[in-house]
Amino acid sequence: MSDSPFLTPARRAAIAPFLAMDVMREAAQLRAGGRDIIQMEVGAPCAGPPRRAREAVMAALDGRAIGYTDALGQTSLRQRIARHYRETYGVEIDPERVAVTTGSSGGFIMAFLALFDAGARVAINCPSYPCYRNILGAFGVETVELRGVEGVTPEQVEAADDARKLDGLLLMNPSNPTGALQSDESMRKIAQICEKRGIKFISDEIYHGLTYERPAQTALAFSQAAVVVNSFSKYYCMTGWRVGWLVVPPGFSRVIERLQQSLAISPPTLSQIAAEAAFDATEELEAVKAGYARNRRILLDALTGMGFGLAPADGAFYVYADLSRFSDNSLEFCKNLLERAGVAATPGVDFDPSQGRRALRFSYAGVEVDMIEAMRRLKTFLGR
Amino acid sequence: MSDSPFLTPARRAAIAPFLAMDVMREAAQLRAGGRDIIQMEVGAPCAGPPRRAREAVMAALDGRAIGYTDALGQTSLRQRIARHYRETYGVEIDPERVAVTTGSSGGFIMAFLALFDAGARVAINCPSYPCYRNILGAFGVETVELRGVEGVTPEQVEAADDARKLDGLLLMNPSNPTGALQSDESMRKIAQICEKRGIKFISDEIYHGLTYERPAQTALAFSQAAVVVNSFSKYYCMTGWRVGWLVVPPGFSRVIERLQQSLAISPPTLSQIAAEAAFDATEELEAVKAGYARNRRILLDALTGMGFGLAPADGAFYVYADLSRFSDNSLEFCKNLLERAGVAATPGVDFDPSQGRRALRFSYAGVEVDMIEAMRRLKTFLGR
Repeated sequence: MSDSPFLTPARRAAIAPFLAMDVMREAAQLRAGGRDIIQMEVGAPCAGPPRRAREAVMAALDGRAIGYTDALGQTSLRQRIARHYRETYGVEIDPERVAVTTGSSGGFIMAFLALFDAGARVAINCPSYPCYRNILGAFGVETVELRGVEGVTPEQVEAADDARKLDGLLLMNPSNPTGALQSDESMRKIAQICEKRGIKFISDEIYHGLTYERPAQTALAFSQAAVVVNSFSKYYCMTGWRVGWLVVPPGFSRVIERLQQSLAISPPTLSQIAAEAAFDATEELEAVKAGYARNRRILLDALTGMGFGLAPADGAFYVYADLSRFSDNSLEFCKNLLERAGVAATPGVDFDPSQGRRALRFSYAGVEVDMIEAMRRLKTFLGR
Repeated sequence: MSDSPFLTPARRAAIAPFLAMDVMREAAQLRAGGRDIIQMEVGAPCAGPPRRAREAVMAALDGRAIGYTDALGQTSLRQRIARHYRETYGVEIDPERVAVTTGSSGGFIMAFLALFDAGARVAINCPSYPCYRNILGAFGVETVELRGVEGVTPEQVEAADDARKLDGLLLMNPSNPTGALQSDESMRKIAQICEKRGIKFISDEIYHGLTYERPAQTALAFSQAAVVVNSFSKYYCMTGWRVGWLVVPPGFSRVIERLQQSLAISPPTLSQIAAEAAFDATEELEAVKAGYARNRRILLDALTGMGFGLAPADGAFYVYADLSRFSDNSLEFCKNLLERAGVAATPGVDFDPSQGRRALRFSYAGVEVDMIEAMRRLKTFLGR
């Protein structure tokens, strides 16, 4: 795993790569070499940050120091996030429960260390975001797979806990990579099961705001014990800014604060300023989302027409496609698709090590003309 | 450690607070309440980011997406950092060995996970940056204290390793909180001892550029096996931007890349753009440093005059003062100094849990008039 003659890595550093990032690097290299590449591998909106966010940052660049903030983030942003829960979900939360984090990535580090000791067992949906397995693995936490492209059922959680005690459940809703959206009723039941059985429940709500049939409800509506992870990367179009947040149960903030003081000092200051302004950019952001809705339609129609089986795609900006009619090696398929057709997609093994060899993920957070062209290229590629 | 009736924290989350951050929050609250507070508790330059850095960010805010970068950072920044080693230290390094990180904080997370498994033993200087203990503690790594306000001697490293095998040595040079600068000769010997004995050597060079008698040499000049941590927070006046870097041994980058893909995705993009531009702001940054040199003189003279014993203060922007003539409770002393005299300083227990009750740290990264006024207030406070 390391080719260094100078240094031996720790055993816990032997985590899998995040393949979407590897594909992104390869796609960028091909692009730098003059190739015309359509990038559908990484979950990154093609739209720029909201105008108001940019203006707020410009105003802050007046020559004064851009210093550390409080470890849990600027008070005004924590208050604004709390207001967001009242306005969007009808849920009252004390701003004290909000911790601004360095993207959802920073939120995972803090939440996992705050909740789970080495040797703990945490259930996750499969397929799911590969970094769950990788971060938890680096922290010595075992992941238990709950299979299902349509999400997780309350019965699955109970059965897994009956089979062997679970310490936690980590659920992304809507899901990356499948787009599946849990029903409010199943979320309520799952939250109740977790409370009753002492399973720590982390709800990853990073794709909230991006659903196409019905809105997603926050886990905070169902349980005071839930820990919510969210981010400004997706709906708010601010991936590279690395700013997100946690909402933790009443009385729990100091645990996160102490961890964040030492492991991060504070989240990026300009990104916090931009994030607060982004809450007032709804019109602009809804226009971006309307573009995703058109892109989604294009992909669902084209991929179905080509004979791919598709996961739900209720939300987020991904289509997770069953590849079995065409290949049982998603790594090789994606490599060829990139090199021969100039379309970058992420192999399913990133999200599902055991069965992902027969699946791949497309992101439709790009522009419409690229979606149309990518589907045309894919069709030609398959016809060869 | 948690007052939450809803959630029990993990045992490994029971780390100490970073007291400087707690004092900063209290100072900010007093200030918000209208009090005139001189903040000397946190290591944050009062100067704004370099003009060129601000201009580079403004230019990037043209409406285009500010997306993720490669996990290890933008190629141009990695190349620029490699050039910095050639120009500043006369040391050639391949840009492939550079990993841009989310501040030195992000660098520590990646380096510690990459190098040490739970149960490992890592020697650190004492007093030292409290987050070393706290992060390593959260990762299940034991710290071994090498005492000395003047730094660490080669003999100390050998003796500690003889007493019980060390897995690593983590050394900040010049030191926070003492400002002590190791001689090049001792750094060379320590690097050689580490290579010979298989002790993984991490050199924290975050205060390089800020020495007042002679420059600091990088550990890379003495060992190919050393891992270097650095940041744009201190010399480059960019604390709140959360951008730093690692240099790792040849062949080792992929280990860091995989960790960073999953644990961070990539460092903040605007901060990377600003960082690259900051390398060309030497004139502006040297003027800031000249201010620190004046402040340093003011503090050394005033504190000596008041009867404090002082640590070396060769570099960084701290004075670590022996409090024993006045108090054996630095927590209480700093609390009173803040509340009664309006001067925020950090209690020594932050840096040295066992003997820091008789020490405190002042940062002199502020403006000159504040330094003079703070020393006047301290004198009055002591005279009461």
